[in-house]
Formats: sequence, structure tokens, C-alpha cells
Amino acid sequence: MEGLFYPESVAVLGASTKPGKIGYALFKNLVEGGFRGRVYPVNVKGGAIDGRRVYRSLSELPEVPDLLIVAIPARAVPGALEEAGRLGIRRAIVISAGFSEVGEEGRRLEEELVRVARRHNILLVGPNCLGIYNSENKLCSIFNPMDRQRFPGPGSIALLSQSGALGAAMLDWMADMGLGMSKFVSYGNAALLEERHFVEYLAQDPKTRVIALYIEGVKDGKAFMETARKVAARKPILVIKAGRSSEGAAAASSHTGSMAGSFEVYEGAFRQSGILYTRSLREFFVMAKALSMLEPPSGPRVGIVTNGGGMGVLTTDAVIEGGLEIARFSEGTVEEFERLVRAGKLPEHGAYNNPVDILGDARPETYEEAMRVVLSDPGVDMVVLIVIAVAPTLRPDLPQRLSHLVGKKPVVGIIPGSDFAKSMARGLEDMGIPVYETPEEAVVALRALYDYGRIRKKLSSGTGP
Amino acid sequence: MEGLFYPESVAVLGASTKPGKIGYALFKNLVEGGFRGRVYPVNVKGGAIDGRRVYRSLSELPEVPDLLIVAIPARAVPGALEEAGRLGIRRAIVISAGFSEVGEEGRRLEEELVRVARRHNILLVGPNCLGIYNSENKLCSIFNPMDRQRFPGPGSIALLSQSGALGAAMLDWMADMGLGMSKFVSYGNAALLEERHFVEYLAQDPKTRVIALYIEGVKDGKAFMETARKVAARKPILVIKAGRSSEGAAAASSHTGSMAGSFEVYEGAFRQSGILYTRSLREFFVMAKALSMLEPPSGPRVGIVTNGGGMGVLTTDAVIEGGLEIARFSEGTVEEFERLVRAGKLPEHGAYNNPVDILGDARPETYEEAMRVVLSDPGVDMVVLIVIAVAPTLRPDLPQRLSHLVGKKPVVGIIPGSDFAKSMARGLEDMGIPVYETPEEAVVALRALYDYGRIRKKLSSGTGP
Repeated sequence: MEGLFYPESVAVLGASTKPGKIGYALFKNLVEGGFRGRVYPVNVKGGAIDGRRVYRSLSELPEVPDLLIVAIPARAVPGALEEAGRLGIRRAIVISAGFSEVGEEGRRLEEELVRVARRHNILLVGPNCLGIYNSENKLCSIFNPMDRQRFPGPGSIALLSQSGALGAAMLDWMADMGLGMSKFVSYGNAALLEERHFVEYLAQDPKTRVIALYIEGVKDGKAFMETARKVAARKPILVIKAGRSSEGAAAASSHTGSMAGSFEVYEGAFRQSGILYTRSLREFFVMAKALSMLEPPSGPRVGIVTNGGGMGVLTTDAVIEGGLEIARFSEGTVEEFERLVRAGKLPEHGAYNNPVDILGDARPETYEEAMRVVLSDPGVDMVVLIVIAVAPTLRPDLPQRLSHLVGKKPVVGIIPGSDFAKSMARGLEDMGIPVYETPEEAVVALRALYDYGRIRKKLSSGTGP
Repeated sequence: MEGLFYPESVAVLGASTKPGKIGYALFKNLVEGGFRGRVYPVNVKGGAIDGRRVYRSLSELPEVPDLLIVAIPARAVPGALEEAGRLGIRRAIVISAGFSEVGEEGRRLEEELVRVARRHNILLVGPNCLGIYNSENKLCSIFNPMDRQRFPGPGSIALLSQSGALGAAMLDWMADMGLGMSKFVSYGNAALLEERHFVEYLAQDPKTRVIALYIEGVKDGKAFMETARKVAARKPILVIKAGRSSEGAAAASSHTGSMAGSFEVYEGAFRQSGILYTRSLREFFVMAKALSMLEPPSGPRVGIVTNGGGMGVLTTDAVIEGGLEIARFSEGTVEEFERLVRAGKLPEHGAYNNPVDILGDARPETYEEAMRVVLSDPGVDMVVLIVIAVAPTLRPDLPQRLSHLVGKKPVVGIIPGSDFAKSMARGLEDMGIPVYETPEEAVVALRALYDYGRIRKKLSSGTGP
């Protein structure tokens, strides 16, 4: 499996010399995207792409490639894979569509493909997929043009998507949101390698901290849930499942052929297997970001520090409505706040119950004092840091000011706004504080961390989630 | 009231010659922000700001200004307002803090302020507020530095915020999201002019299409709800209320002194008055955008057109879970789709039930055919247009291709992604199609339109919502 994600040599069967063709973009994206391994274009027509010789057949290649990417018409794929197998190729990503997703004839073709793969012990991804993106070595089998398709930078979110188009859009969106990724797999029809095989691989991948999946249905539900239960004790698994309503299930069946089944059954299975799940695509990424950056809190009690009272109130509501608790400060904390107000280090008219409101003219030093006190309260399990960035007294050094306080308890930020707000948010994220634009998203993030902490504890102790 | 938003002359009392001071930024923002009226800085110390003479008192001014903006210490404000009243000034925004929000002494000061204002018939905004931003004439009493505070461009969303800091952050965020605004009011302690007075003004403001409010509590609940009920028959009123939980209510009471009261009572009152409300800050803007751009649909039935199956399935689920319906296509529509597939204008393996999936290699012409058919189905009340923008066959002319189809029924878009996706989204928004990044947000938008349609119908027919 390692060789699927870290091949040293890749052949692209169906590489095209014609710009605009999928086989052209596929080859270009691999070479120009920064992949450092050896890449061989293969096409019966021969010729050259940007001065590189195109091999007329796999047998002409100077070596047996670690990975074969296939983008030729479906009917020719089984034969090509047969040849690849004979040559000793053991890994293939079949991009080509026209298999079980298009009806009976395609289904027979897919069965033939699987027989060939099994006969030659070929690890097969697809068919009808976008394949793999690995942010570490820039292995990329995605054929969308680079002028519109962006890829996330290195990070610890792994993404598996049953839908290729949605998967590609999610990559592009993640890049825009600044979310870092370890590996991406669009596995298409999952004729041989299924979601659970990738989950198992990612569980032991040191670059991956959270495994996020978009699914409509799984091939083998029981096996998937068993795998998930094992993996979730070590790494969070996060799922967004489509086809929850009967109307959605009908649409899913015509899309991926998934028998979506009752969502209640899925929900129960997710819960039993320790899988975190959401119905919202935005929450999916809100949760993935938090889980990729932070460890779970030791309890449900939230402390809030803000320079804007209104956002503090909204966040308080969101905490309660999200099933978490507003921490009650200890006597020591109350006294420390009183002392700091007397010393002129915190504003007289601020609020020092939870939420702590250090007012609109708070400076980075004010934040530092308030955050220090709140983080050291034994009754606070995690903290929301709210920054109304347009306030005149804030300075860009706020993140540095807080850096020595971060790391012991989970902290998430709320900073809505434009350029200055975004640069402040980036500064905090570089320090390991995930930042969101709204109270409800910050709370969804904290709740996911809290839930995962409980899941991991229960799965590790063997009592089930 | 018109003169509050459209003054021809403004005096800034407390204008400062010192960069970094609030009174300096206030004056600079007004002059450099593009306000074309006459602006007079006033400060007992005299001097000059950027070569402009600073008047030592209001009585020195060459004319009686239409509007006075006050940013001097609280204890001096009632006296200053007394002088202003004697001079014939009839409108004032008091930015200064230190009134009822800081305790008993401040409360007495505020009562005095109100007495002065009433005696001289002065329309008073504040105190303890940011005041007004008018995108049309660039009147601006917000003192945040321009290097961090952005303002939304012209548009039809009016925003009222009980919280100044949150209000400013919302302006900055709206600018970043590309949401257009008519007018903004941060009314602070609402000592004289309350939220309902602004709602009444905005109801007849031709630039305003939706009135959005952030509130923790309202001064006079009964009067507010009566006003809302009258206004909602003509324009949508959208509320996000903080202090819903008892913990949040306690925080609100220390923030704005609002007696938040039971949220159930508020919810009931909102419903009776025809007010749309949400608990989510993101949904607040999702709804505001749709309500500012589209008319309500005539029913709950949604059509979906997509080039990505997965996003189509997620959207189908969101429609059902959002309380709307997936439209069933008429026989005529089914036949028309069959004809177009036979004619090669729509792909053979596409899906032509609702959602309509025109597949990953759809071109703008394909979208045009599918959208035309779906929009003309009599059983479709509104449409979700999904664009996976990274697909190779899409071209930037998609918006133009669809322009002749838009306007009869509400259409919202879903386009997540980075630069190319965003430019596509902007193109559609310029045509009047609000675009979102996720299915759930598109559905929240449609649901708000649908709900408002029912509210308007019932309030207009006099049967109550």
C-alpha cells in the first residue's frame, strides 16, 4: 500500500499529447505539480509531450513502474491491466469511467477488471475515480486543469471521497480555507480497494492525524465498522454521509449505485464504531480542522475571553446549545482578576465572570493577562478566544504575546472579518489555535474534540463508545 | 430622521489632532472615507487637523450643522448637548461611553442626557455606540482605523446592532464576503432612539430591502413587535438574538444591561410579528444575502441541477432536512429531457430525475439546456444550481449563458472552492443569483425566502403569520 502513495516511478497509460485531453492534464499535473519520481507517458500513438518521449506500450518502458495510472477507454482497461500484471506491475489507479456506474455491460467489465487484478495481485484503486493526491511527495492523479484546481498544502487531514467531483471541489476549497492535508483518495467504484483499506493504511500513516470521509454508502458495512472501531481508538474518524433522506438515497443510488440504506442504521453504526459524523459540509471541515490541530479536552467546561461583549454572549449561547458547559471560575481565579483590575492590568468596567470581557480597547497585554488566568483555572477544560480585530488598540503581535500560554488546554479562536482579521487568525493558527468565523463553528469544533476524547477513552478501555 | 443618515453638514465634537485618538480617527474616517458633506472638527483645544481649522466651540461654527457627532468624556456630554440644542442642532450621535452601562452614576448621566435631548427636540443616537454608516453618501461615525476596518459596498442589507464591537466586526466581515449594505446603525444604550425607530425609518428607505438586527434585548418589547409586524408585511426583518440561554442572558445583562428574558417568549413574539430569526451568525448572513437579492418562491418545491453527483445528493438531503420538498418533474419535463439526450444536447448517462446530474464534463451549454428545462417545469418553485468549478469543461462564460433564464423563479448557487470558483460565483451574483459554499447554506437561504413569502402573504391578508 505504501507504494500507492509513495511510488518512485509512475507510468501514465493514456497520456495524451493533446492539450485539453484528460490524459494530457493527468501527465502535466504529475510532472509540473512537483512529483519527483520518474514519470513515463504511455500511449499507443507514441509521439512526445513537451519533448518527452511517449512510450507506445508498457513493455517498452525502461523499468517496471511502482504505480500505473490508467486513463484509456473502459473496454480496453482489462486487457491493459492484464499486460501490466504480466510485466510485474502491482499497483494501479484506474481513472477511466464506464464501469459498473453505467449499467450491466459496465458491471461485467468491472468484474473482469477485478479478476485480472486478483490474478496478478494488483492493488487496484477505482475505476471511475480521481485517484490519489499526496501532499508530501506531490503524487497526483487528478486531471483537473491547474488553472482552476488548487491543492491543499501539507497538513494532517486525510480525506477519502466516494465522489470524485465533490472530492476535487473539497481539495480546492480546503486550499482556499488554508486547511492542511496529508493524503486524498477518490476511490470511485471501489471495485477492489474499499474505503476501509484506506482507513487502515491512514491509521498507521504518521502524517495523518484525522481521517475524514465523504460517503454515500460503504461496500461492506460490517467490515468497515470493525475497521473504524479499531482505528478510532487511535485517530479520529469523521464522516459526512449523503443519502440520508429517502430522496437523497434515491439520488445516491443513481450516482454511485450505493444502496444508501436507512440513515438511522448508519447513525447507530457510526456511534457504535466511535465515528464522528455531521450532516453539514461546513461542519465537516470545522471539525476536521480542530481534530487535526488539537488534543481532546479533559472535560466539557469552556472558558471564554473576548474584547467584544456581543460575541461573548453569542458564544455563551452556542456553548450551552452545543451541549457543553460554561466553566464556573474558582475563588482563586476571581481573586486574581480582582487583583489585576486593582493593579490596572485589566479594565475596571470589564466583566470577569465567564465570559471574560476585557472590552473594546483591550491590548495584546490585556489578552495575555486574561488568557493566563482563565487557562490556569482548574475548572476550565478548554478556552474560546474571541478577537474583534477591527478594534483600534489591537496590534499584530497578539499571537506572539499568547504563544507561551498555548498547548496545555485546547484553545480555539473566533475572528470574523477581512484582511487584518485574517492575518491575525493566520498568526494564531500558526501557533496551533484553530480559528473560526462564528461562535457556532467554534463550539462545533470544541464539541468534536470533547466527543472524540470520550470515544477514545471508551474504545481504549474496551467498554465501547 | 432622514437628516441623521443624509446630513449636508456634520460637526465632530471631540475631534482630535492626535493620531491614535478616537476623535482623530472619527474625523479622518468621515473625511477620507468619501463623505461629501461639510465636516467641522470641534475641540476646546483648537489647533488644526491636516491643515483644517479646529473650531473651539460649537458656537464658532459657520453654520448650524445637520448632525453632531459627540466623542468627549461622558460627564461633559449633557452640557455640550444643551449648548447644541440652544444653537438649533437637532440630531446627535453620542459615541462616548460611560453612561448606563457602567452603573448608577452613569445611569443618572444618561437620564440627564435624555432630558436635554427631549427639551431641544434632538434626535439622539447612543450613547455608548458606534453610530451610523451609510454606504450611499459614506456618512460614517465609526472610529476604527481604516487600515483594519473595511466597509461593505452599496447594497440593500440594512444592519442594526445593539453591540458596537460586534457590529463593526460584522461590517468588516460583510465587506470580505462581498455582501452589499444600505445602512448600518450601532445604537448603543438606545437612550432615546430605539431599534424600532430605525426599523420604521428603514422600512421606507428605498435603498433597503432587508432589515437585519443583532439584539440582546429590546427596550420596549410590545412597541417593537408592533412595529415589526407592520414592517414585515413590506420588507423582511431578520433577527439574531443573543442571551438565549440563562448563561447567555446573564452575560448579556452585564454587557448591555439587557434583561434578555426567556427566549421562548422572544421566539413566540418573533413568530407572531413575522420576524425571521436564527441562532447562527453564519446563517444570519446567509439569509440576509438571499432576502436582499431574491423575491420569495411561490411554493416549497426545489429543483436541483448539478455537474457533481455527490453535491446533488448532499443538497437533496439538505432540502428535505430543511423542511422543503424535492420537486417531481412533470411528464413534459421528462419527455423534454429524453428529447435532449437523444439530440446529444444532454449526456446519455446523466440523471434526469430531480436532482438533475449533467455530469463532470458538462459545458455551459449543457447547464443552459438543463436549467431551461427545470426552470420551466410548473412543479418547480425554485432552483439550486450546483457548479463544481474545478471541472475541466467549464468555461468562465457560464453566468452569461444562463442570464436569459434568470429572474422568474428564485435561483441560488452552490460553488465551493478557490479562485476560479469564486470568480464564477461573483459572475452569478452579479446576475442576481446568491451563491453559497455548502448545500445546507443554500437551503437555509431558500427556506428563508419561502418563510418570508408565507409571512408576507399572511400579514398582508390580515390573518396574522
